[in-house]
Formats: sequence, structure tokens, C-alpha cells
Amino acid sequence: MSSAQGGPVDLPGLELGPSATGCGQLGKASLFASRMRRVREAMAAQGLDALLVSLGADLPWLTGYVAMPLERLTMLVVPTAGSEGATLVVPRLEAPRVTAMPEVFSVRAWEETEDPVEVVAELVRAVAGHSPALAISDRTWARFLLELQARFPSASWLSASVVTGPLRAVKDDAEVAALARVAASADKVAAKLLAGDIGLVGRSERQVSAHISQLLREEGHEQVNFAIVASGPNAASPHHDASERVIGESEPVVCDFGGSLGGYCSDITRTVFTGPPPAELARVYEVVAEAQAAGVAAAQVGQACSEVDRVARAVIAQAGYGQYFVHRTGHGIGLEEHEGPYLVAGNDAPLVAGNVFSVEPGIYVPGKWGVRVEDIVVATPAGPVTLNKASRELTVVRG
Amino acid sequence: MSSAQGGPVDLPGLELGPSATGCGQLGKASLFASRMRRVREAMAAQGLDALLVSLGADLPWLTGYVAMPLERLTMLVVPTAGSEGATLVVPRLEAPRVTAMPEVFSVRAWEETEDPVEVVAELVRAVAGHSPALAISDRTWARFLLELQARFPSASWLSASVVTGPLRAVKDDAEVAALARVAASADKVAAKLLAGDIGLVGRSERQVSAHISQLLREEGHEQVNFAIVASGPNAASPHHDASERVIGESEPVVCDFGGSLGGYCSDITRTVFTGPPPAELARVYEVVAEAQAAGVAAAQVGQACSEVDRVARAVIAQAGYGQYFVHRTGHGIGLEEHEGPYLVAGNDAPLVAGNVFSVEPGIYVPGKWGVRVEDIVVATPAGPVTLNKASRELTVVRG
Repeated sequence: MSSAQGGPVDLPGLELGPSATGCGQLGKASLFASRMRRVREAMAAQGLDALLVSLGADLPWLTGYVAMPLERLTMLVVPTAGSEGATLVVPRLEAPRVTAMPEVFSVRAWEETEDPVEVVAELVRAVAGHSPALAISDRTWARFLLELQARFPSASWLSASVVTGPLRAVKDDAEVAALARVAASADKVAAKLLAGDIGLVGRSERQVSAHISQLLREEGHEQVNFAIVASGPNAASPHHDASERVIGESEPVVCDFGGSLGGYCSDITRTVFTGPPPAELARVYEVVAEAQAAGVAAAQVGQACSEVDRVARAVIAQAGYGQYFVHRTGHGIGLEEHEGPYLVAGNDAPLVAGNVFSVEPGIYVPGKWGVRVEDIVVATPAGPVTLNKASRELTVVRG
Repeated sequence: MSSAQGGPVDLPGLELGPSATGCGQLGKASLFASRMRRVREAMAAQGLDALLVSLGADLPWLTGYVAMPLERLTMLVVPTAGSEGATLVVPRLEAPRVTAMPEVFSVRAWEETEDPVEVVAELVRAVAGHSPALAISDRTWARFLLELQARFPSASWLSASVVTGPLRAVKDDAEVAALARVAASADKVAAKLLAGDIGLVGRSERQVSAHISQLLREEGHEQVNFAIVASGPNAASPHHDASERVIGESEPVVCDFGGSLGGYCSDITRTVFTGPPPAELARVYEVVAEAQAAGVAAAQVGQACSEVDRVARAVIAQAGYGQYFVHRTGHGIGLEEHEGPYLVAGNDAPLVAGNVFSVEPGIYVPGKWGVRVEDIVVATPAGPVTLNKASRELTVVRG
């Protein structure tokens, strides 16, 4: 038996009492019903017969429920049309975790000796013909897709994000508030890092990572998703984790951490120095900070995502470090750490008010060192708003 | 940027120096090369052209590398035949995390503006014809399978577990040692629970769950996967997580927790009582403990998995509680918390020496209470060996 992250999500901002804006009167069920209605409209526009939603953030976004990431299938079956409504197919022994929400979905619990794929197939047959047009959530296990395809050899299939992605990428006010709240919690940990309250020199990256994780929980995070601590030459690997390497003096230390609160994610990076950096490294820091600020400033509603990337990249290229900025400038964030919109060359979709994303340029010189600075930003009609407030000044940490 | 669980796995038992058994001379690369060879033999027997391995435990089992569970594709392409060897397609910025292992695989890093699915498709085209027979790892995101299917409309597809499952289900000595080590670590936490060292009455389930998680880390776990604490009526939900409910006196408390050490998983359940249970509940506990012992005793090499389930279930049914044992008797465990073999009606495959699995019957009376007892067991030619040693006696915990 194991639980592993599944369960109900406490969607933030939805348990407010009546408020001046009136949004407090929008109950959870109404919110989910409204999302379901918009999804079904988008499904109709795509010519789909049904949407199948398993692992990933689409399910909690639509229902408040997080499927357990295990071998027993959980799948929401959403027909496009008709009065049938959606059905959540869930293992019998997990059914007590699901709060019934008749406005949004009914529950079909399957027994240990039943085949859940057949249960889903029956629900699809009830609303679609011989060659159904189906969408399936992006993170559904390939195994289940193959089993479904064997039952519907003439079906056509789409990734569900074609339908849900554009809707989920535009956060409503309660979601922005939730992202601001979790960013503020991460900022408190970043402030401690910058103030020298997290001992670095003489401790291993792994110890510092564990310390940051603990502080994230103490400052309100309900879940820690990652705490990268990359020191000295390790800082040159953007996705370095945290090793047994002991942090020395006069090194850059890239700390990139995040988790969630009420289901919504944080993600912040600060690079600190355990002694005054040499002139070149100090210069590199200023270039990265400047690129980051330029990227944020470029993140105006209507601007192409690729243009934000180009603007941040140009600052680094002009300083002569273009070849060392080896990743995209940013990613959307919400119920998932990484989701649309992606700020990357080739994505020419315009930013929309309510998009929330990271802006995180970096410079990485293999074998030597690396620097990255990252904040979460909201695109608003009044311009970009940075949710993270922790200082971006070059900071030398003693101890 | 975020890391989230990816990275190298410290496969246990593989860094031993030369030993009396000689297995210490088997380096990591040789071990992975041996697994790769057996997988390719099984692929040939299935008539496959290539195996595509993304998320899940197949990849660390074959290479020692855990893919990051994010939107940038990591995929190992394993051709069945030829001298080409396997290729790990990995995002450029994660490439520094991969330790090159030329005996087992080469690395193809893809750039931020490349399409990784096309990179995989090219590798498949190099070893297969127009209608390739492919297997893909079970937990690969559906999105990537759909993108690959669009490139190979005439391909046939299998779940990779058809190939890897039977091999991974038979643990070698080093793997059994790793599972024993992590079970012993979990046992220490269970012993503290039974000794009353973990305060229960007056604390919330969530607080106790956090305490158990902390103890698991202190006792050597590198990762905590879950810590279910289900008290009073909550104990009637087998997959209850841990809520704000404050634990009272004279209640059953089901504690089911596990995590990993060196990549291998633990999973143990003990049900304790915060006061002497009423006669019926004490009787139920004895029935569950008896069913658990009967299930373990039945887990002989050659016995059908379904028979282990039937034997444990019969004890509970004879006591009149058959309708309240709502889940299968057990699941395999290894690099994943849940993997084959499953001890469930309908799975008539025989147990093989080296199978490692949970035996965890329970009785759950909705709205009232629940009881479960769980150990991890190895099937050996000498009979079943229980890796968990913590007491299974009915235990009343004070405080």
C-alpha cells in the first residue's frame, strides 16, 4: 500500500467567505463546473467526442482531485456533448479519497478484479461511435493509451493539452493569488540564504539542500519539489541536483528551489558567492541579472514568448557569453512546475494577461562555474509583475 | 528550472570490493551490460525491432540513470540486434547528470530548439524498416507516444513491461540485500511506533505523518515516498493519506509508510491502538495478523500468486469479514513501490525465487475503523523470508 502524492488538492482562494469582489460566492463546485464548461466548448471546437484525463494537473484543475501515480488506473471521462456529464473512474480503495461533486462529475469505482480500461472503454462507447475522436491527458501512462487503442483501433487521438493548455495557461485572480502566496514563502527562504542564515562553507551541497527543503516547509510550503544546490564547477550544470561536494570559500553557489502550497508551485533561483568573486565572475553575474531584468521588462501582454527569450539572450550574447546560455529563458508555472507558456525560440504565441512564468537566464562555463537568476512573473494589462521580491543584487555570503 | 527526483541512482551492492562470492568483481557497467543483454534476448523472442525507455524504473534498472519527470524528453533507444548499442536521448542541460557508460549506452544530447521526438525517430529508422515492432516503457507520457505514432503510422506497439517485467521481478542477491537494508531502516521507525516513542494522542495525523517521514530519513532513507496515518474512522479508507484529524484515545491507527535507499523501496504497515481495543476490534486484529501470516506461509516458490491471495482472504472470510477486505493481498516491490508480481485473484503465474512482494491483508468497516498489517517478503528456494522484523503483536501505545 502506498499513497505517494495523490489526494485532494486544497485549491486556494476558493474557501473565501463572501467578499467585496463577489468571487467568494463562487463555490468550488461552481468554479470546477465553469472550467468543465469551457473545456467542453474547446472540445467541441476541436471536433472531439471525449476527453480522457489521468495523471497530471488537468485532473486537479478540472475536479480538485489528484490521481495517485500508481498502477491502478484513475481516469476522468468527459463527453463533449449530451447531458451525461463526466465520470471519474477510480480504484475502489481510493474512492473514499474522492469528494463527490455531482455538479462536475460522478464516480465509478472499479473493483480489484475488474479491468479499469474496459470500464473507461464502456463509457466512451456510450457517447461516441465506432471511430471516436479522443483526447488523452499528456502524462497518462503509455501503457494505458496502448490498452485503449487496442479497444478503439479506428479512433483518432490528440494530446489533451491541445484543449486544456491554453485554458490553464491563463490564471484567474485566485490562482495568481495562490502563486503570489507560494512565491512569498519561497522568498523568505531566499532572504535567509542572502542574509547568510543558511551555512554554506564546509557543508555538503546535499546538507544545504536538505536545510533549504526544511526551511521551505517551515515557511509554509506543503510540498518541496526540488532544492538544487550547485557549487563551484557543479554550478555549470543547470540541472545539477545536490551532491556530497563540500562547498568551499570564494565559490558561486546556485540555489534553485521550489515546491507547492495549496497545489500551486514556486520556483526561484539565487546565485550567491562564498567570497568576493573575481572580476570576470562578478561581471558575469551583472550580465545575468541584466538579462533577467530585460527579459522581465519584455514580458508585456501581446509580446511573443520567443521575443522575451530573444531579448534576455541578446544581453548575454552582447557580453560575449551567448554560447554559455544553454537553455530557454523560462517556462509557465501553476499546478505544475513546468507548463505553458514556454519562453523559447520558435514559440511565437503572444503573452496573454494571466500568464505566469519564470524568467531565468544563466551563464554556464563547463568545468568552471555557473550563474542563474530566476523569478516568477505575471503578465498583466499594466505590465509584467514580478512575484518574487528577494534581492537580485550580487551577494557575498559569509560562512 | 527544477530537478524533481531525476538523477543518478546509487545502485546498492555494486560498489563492493572483491568478495568471497566474487560478485564484487562485477562492476556497475558489467551488471548493466548483463541486464541489457538479457533484455535484448527477450526483445528478440518477442519479435521487436527496438525498445524505447523513458520515465519509470526500467531506465535506472538498465542504466543507473533516472529520467527527470518533466516535459523535456529523456528516452533510451535500444535496438534488438546489430552492433549499434543503445542511445540515451537526453536534454542538453541534463547531459552533465549522465555518467557515460560506453559498454551500455552512448549519449545523444538534444538542444533546446531541437525536436527530441524526431531525434528518437531517426534512431529508430536506423535500425528498423517501415513497419517497426516497438515496445515503449509503461510510464512514458502518452503525449510522446502519440508524437511517435504520428511518425510511424504502420508501427506495432507493446508495453515495455512485457519484456522488462519478468526480468525485473526476479531480484539478484545485491537487489535483495538492498531491499533488506531499506526494510531494516523502516523497521526501526516501526519499532519506535510500537514502543510509544512517536506521540499519537492529541496530535493530528498530518503531524504524526511528518514525524514518521523525519524518522525514516534519520534512520537512513534517502527519500520518503509516503507516510499514511489513518486513525479512528479514517482507518477504514485503505488509501487514506493523513488529515488534520486529531488522534484520540482508544482508537486504531493504521501507519503505512515507505521510501527508498539506494533506489530500492520499503513499505510496511503496523496498526496500533491508543487504548485497549474493544473485544471485537481485538478479534479483528488477530484475524488480520493470522491472515497475514497465512499469506506469508503460502508464498512458496512455484505457488500461484492468486493462491497467496486466496489463502490470506480465506482466513478473513472464515471469520466473517470477507466483504471488508477490499483490496488485493500484495504487490511486488523493488525500484518501484508497486511492480510485479501482483498477489491478486486472476494472476495465476507462479512465484519464482527472487520475487519480492508485500503481504498486506486488511479489514475495513466503513465509518468505523480499519486494521492492516504488512511486511515485505522474499520467495526463496528455502521458503518465504520476511524482510520486516518489527513485531506483529497487538500493541497498545500509551500517549
